[in-house]
Parts: sequence; C-alpha cells; structure tokens
Amino acid sequence: MEAYLDNSATTPLCAEAAEAMQDAVGRFWGNPSSLHRPGLEAERLLARCRADVAASLHCGPGEVTFTSGGTESNNLALFGAAAALRRRGRRIVTSAVEHSSIAESAAELQSRGYDVAYLGVDGQGRVSEQELLRLVTGDTILVSLMAVNNEVGTLQPIDAVRRALRRANAPALVHCDAVQAYGKLPVNPQRLGVDLLTVSSHKIHGPKGAGALYVRKGVRISPILFGGSQEQKLRPGTEAMPAIAGFAAAARAIPDLQQSLQYATTLRDRLVLALSTMEGVKLNSPPDALPYLTNISLPGLQSETMLNFLSERGVYVSPGSACAKGKKSRVLRAMGLPEADIAGALRISLSRYTTWEEIDAFLFALNEARMTLARK
Amino acid sequence: MEAYLDNSATTPLCAEAAEAMQDAVGRFWGNPSSLHRPGLEAERLLARCRADVAASLHCGPGEVTFTSGGTESNNLALFGAAAALRRRGRRIVTSAVEHSSIAESAAELQSRGYDVAYLGVDGQGRVSEQELLRLVTGDTILVSLMAVNNEVGTLQPIDAVRRALRRANAPALVHCDAVQAYGKLPVNPQRLGVDLLTVSSHKIHGPKGAGALYVRKGVRISPILFGGSQEQKLRPGTEAMPAIAGFAAAARAIPDLQQSLQYATTLRDRLVLALSTMEGVKLNSPPDALPYLTNISLPGLQSETMLNFLSERGVYVSPGSACAKGKKSRVLRAMGLPEADIAGALRISLSRYTTWEEIDAFLFALNEARMTLARK
Repeated sequence: MEAYLDNSATTPLCAEAAEAMQDAVGRFWGNPSSLHRPGLEAERLLARCRADVAASLHCGPGEVTFTSGGTESNNLALFGAAAALRRRGRRIVTSAVEHSSIAESAAELQSRGYDVAYLGVDGQGRVSEQELLRLVTGDTILVSLMAVNNEVGTLQPIDAVRRALRRANAPALVHCDAVQAYGKLPVNPQRLGVDLLTVSSHKIHGPKGAGALYVRKGVRISPILFGGSQEQKLRPGTEAMPAIAGFAAAARAIPDLQQSLQYATTLRDRLVLALSTMEGVKLNSPPDALPYLTNISLPGLQSETMLNFLSERGVYVSPGSACAKGKKSRVLRAMGLPEADIAGALRISLSRYTTWEEIDAFLFALNEARMTLARK
Repeated sequence: MEAYLDNSATTPLCAEAAEAMQDAVGRFWGNPSSLHRPGLEAERLLARCRADVAASLHCGPGEVTFTSGGTESNNLALFGAAAALRRRGRRIVTSAVEHSSIAESAAELQSRGYDVAYLGVDGQGRVSEQELLRLVTGDTILVSLMAVNNEVGTLQPIDAVRRALRRANAPALVHCDAVQAYGKLPVNPQRLGVDLLTVSSHKIHGPKGAGALYVRKGVRISPILFGGSQEQKLRPGTEAMPAIAGFAAAARAIPDLQQSLQYATTLRDRLVLALSTMEGVKLNSPPDALPYLTNISLPGLQSETMLNFLSERGVYVSPGSACAKGKKSRVLRAMGLPEADIAGALRISLSRYTTWEEIDAFLFALNEARMTLARK
C-alpha cells in the first residue's frame, strides 16, 4: 500500500472538483468577458464559483479576487498594498518564517526602498505580541503574517496584529497567508481583523492553477498585472475557468471542520505517541500545532536520504516546503534548531482523507529507515 | 443550429486537451517540486509538456516559461525586460494597436518613468518600417509588436524590428505577442528574430489558465512574481498542471498549418464575397489579413445591439477584443475609421473546426439583423 503524507505540498483532487472541471471545459467553455450566450454562461459560472469561495471565507463575493494560486495572491497582497500605501509610510512588518512567496516578495520590496522588519519566532515557531508591538511603528503600511506555518504547523497570533496597529496608530493593511489553515480551521478574515487574506485551491483538494485573495470591502490595493478589466480591474487576463470551477467545488466540499479536525487530532496523537517511543526522533512541531502538520528530525540522518528511502517503499513525506526545494529550512533555523536537526527534518502532513493505515505504513517504514540507514 | 464565430476570444477545448487534463488530475496530481514518486511523476509530465510546447515553437524546452496565460506572459515580457535593461536606456517602442495587456503595461511603465513611443498604423492596421526606423533610438531597450492583430487580423512586419534595432545600434530586446498567430501561422521566434514571444493555451483549443513566454536562450529578464524557484526562477508558484497538460496536448494537436490555413481562406473568401453583396456592410480587415479574422462595420447599427440579436439566434460574434469589454475599439480608431464604423463593428473569428454551415448561419442571421434592426 501507499501512504501519501505530503498534503501540505499538494493534495489529490476530490471527486467534486474533478466533476466541476469537466463541466467547466465541456459545458461552460466560453470567455466570461464575451457578451453572447456562451460568454454569459461562463460569466454566470464564474459568479457561482466566486460565491462558493466567498461562502467558505464568510465574506462577500465582491471581496474575492481569483488569481493563479497562493504565490500570486501573496505577491498581489504585498506589492499591491505597498504600492497603494507608499505615500503613507515605508515600513512593512512580516515574520522570519513565512512562505517563500512572502519572504522573496518582502526582500524585493526591501531592495526597492521599503523598510522591512522581520518578527523572530520562539522555539515553537511563534512570533510574540511584544515584538509585534515593538516593530509596528506609526509609518507601518503593511503587516503580513501567516495563519499556520507550512513547515511546523504553528498557529500565529493573527488577532494581535490589529491590536499592535491600533497602539501604533499605523495606517497599515493587514495581510494573512492562510493557505495552510484554509479548509482545516475556520478562516474568517473579518473576525481575524485582516484586510487581505490568501488561500489556494490545490491545498484543499482542488486543482493547481487557482487561488484567491480576499480584499476587504472598501480596501484598495494596486494591481501587479495590467490588461483587461477582469476581477474588478485588480487581476487582468481571461479567468482560468477550469481551475476556478475545481477550486470552488473543492471549497464547497470542505466538510464540517470540527469533525475533521478531531479526526486529524486523533491521527496526529497516535503518530506523535509512536514517534515518542522511537529513539533519536525529535519532535519540532509544538504540541498545539495544527494537527495536520507534524515536523520531526532524525539528527544524523539526511532528510533527502530518508525521503528517498521512504519513497521507494511507497511512503511520501517531505523535508519541508515544496516551494523551497533543495534549500535548508529557514523556519527551523529561525526556531533555533541545531544544524543536525535541520538537515534531518521531515514533514508529515495529513488531509481529511488520510487513513490509520497510512500512518502505520509511515511508522513502519520510518523504523526500517532508522535501522537500515543508521547502520550504514 | 449554433454558430460560434468568436474563436479569437476563446476556443472550445479539443478532445486531446480534455484527455490530458483528466490524466493530469487523475494520475499526475503530485507537486512537481516534491522529491518523492508522485512529485517526480508530475515533474516528468511537466518536462514532457514543456517539450511539446517548445516543439510547436521550434525552440528548446529551456526557452519555454509557463505562465497563467497571455496577459501574464505579456506583462512578464514588458516589465521583465524593462527592469533587466533599465540601465541601458529608457525607451520602449510598441504600437497603438496592441492587446490591452501590452497597452496597459506600457502605460504603467510610462508612469514609472520609461519613455514609451507608439507606432501608428495605416488604414489597414499596419505599422510602417519607416516609422519603426524613426522611433527606435540608440537607447531603446524594448520593442513589443504583435504578430497578428486580435481585432482585424492584420499581420505586422515583425522581421523589420530587428533591422531597425541594427540601424540604431539599440540594446533592445524584441518581444512579439503571437497569441493570435499561434496555431494558425508558423511561429518560429528564431526566424522572426525575436527574444521574447507570448502564446496562450485557450486560443488554440487548450484550457484557460495557461500560457507561455518564449525567452531566447541567453536572454535574461527579471521576474515579476517572487517566491519559489519554479520555471528556472523566472515564474514562482506551483505549476498549474491540469491547464499546462491541456495546453501541451492542444499544442501537439495543432494540425498541418498549410492545410488548415487553406481551409480558413476558402471560408473567409466565401464570407467576404457574401458580405460584399450586402448593402451597408463595410470590411475593416485588409485583404491579406489572417483569414481566421474578419472585422466588419454596419454603420448606423450598434455592435452590442447586433451582437445580442445574433446571440438570440445562436450566432456568436464579438464587437472586438473580449479583454476590452465595453470599451470602443482603440484599434479601429488608430486605423482612422469614422466613429459610426467603430460603434458598429463586428469581429467574426474562425477556427479550424468552423464549418460552412456556421458561416451560412451567420450570413443569414446578419441579413435578418440588418432588415429588422435598420427598420426600427
């Protein structure tokens, strides 16, 4: 049997999304900007998709902008907010443990003259409200903080950001990269107090090639692509209808979160209990991490060696973020882990479809890896 | 029966693309950046797709960068080249009849301090080599000219651009928006003498949500999105595999161009002959336009009124570019057409699947529209 435990990298398509994609290419293939019947039908499908994604975010349809994925949404949030507020200040606050699409965008903004400040994290991967209060100044125009870390599953105190802004009387917009939280925890941008929020289709059993940026009603950011007036002029280009239809279907198919979270927690607890009995296995995720994500280290063994060993046995995990392929983890480094722990890190990420058998297959193969590889 | 004659806005999916998309979501759903088996299989599929699109462009696979579509490719070409060459000069030369994704990007670059010069066109929509020689100066860093106009089908003298650059000894990169030419005329960037070239999936019977930018080997442009190191670090984000797989299959399915061009020419000739017998119908496309595209005007009638009338009868044409929804045509204005002709313009665009019956259905319905609407 095979065990796919890399659901934070990507997820297999759910049946609902597959069906919606077929409909989008078969029955609704018109250009939503065209004024004739096939165009209008595609436009209506697009509106339904927008309403579905909006419902999953407890927001209005007009607050959902479709993009090509999480990376583009994060770029649009950062560059769009920075450009729109450039006359109000230069400071951007983010954390040291963001996804590469935030980290690289922030670095680019820094090279363009913005003053980027990075929040450090503690040994659990969490930023502190104290540092947030210190770094957020009166000329801060943007704070970007992820909801759930993509490597260790740590939840960040998003609600503290708004408090820090009020204290500093900063004109900043608040962005939250909620890619790993979406479909797993309740994501309600209004309740979180954020203006911009990123979600991605292919992490919730939708297709690759679609994502969305929530832009709170009344908030104006600048576009980063230029052309037609699609997506309320914020994101030009003919809409990626098959991917968007699959995304919306996947959003509709998100089950009761309380129940799936409970299921993931029991799987995780069993996993962590079994790992705690294995000598030489260290747990990097905090106890209150999102249960779908567990990061461990086997110091003395290399991530890639283990990963290949496991892959040959049909067990699929990852050394960290797929978007940081081949690079050592910035996240674990920021958490202060020793180099050996970073070099030997593995991320096990679950989905609501993960089975007990997959967890057992992983544990069995990991044990085999420890025995075989350590002996070499 | 229905007649879809708006193939320049978008095309229905071909069977080959539909099948490839199903494979991409069913068998090859891994993340191409993941190092385990599902990831490696997706990476191999991505490599095959790249080779297929490269073959259709007579270039190397390393010269193909996948994007979310034509609009993003055009943005990447313009902003990427402008940023990469900003120390060599400030001048960018383009034409007055480009797609909105070029026109709006050029306007944005102008607002950022670049010196954008626009080539005018003659009554046939064509730029002149003389003006090209005049506008291309020694500090020109980019020339962007479309291969085939998306509203009237006029072919531009792309090969004249390289001559103008040599004369001016300009350091410029040459970009060609070949979205409307691709799959209909031979598109060979090397032979055209261009460094950057845009193509789109959904204009060649592939899905919406994928496109490519050809970047000639050795040419370096700056990215416009920041994040992971996908697409040789030029375009981050998890690759839109279903759309890319459909795109590549559609590229593979492009038939013998000579034969399909001949077929389109006979359809067009019949269409134009019939139109020439109708009083009050003016032909806006030049006689040597791409035969897939015919632009006409019925002065005194409004495009949208006619379009709705035709749509109700199952005949689907457009007033111009779908990406310029609701706006009056910049192209026809640049060609010097009177306002009444611009207000009453219709674009009839064919594909290799267009039938004689569809042409007849259009002619029949157009005649009915003339009789009915003119009487009102």
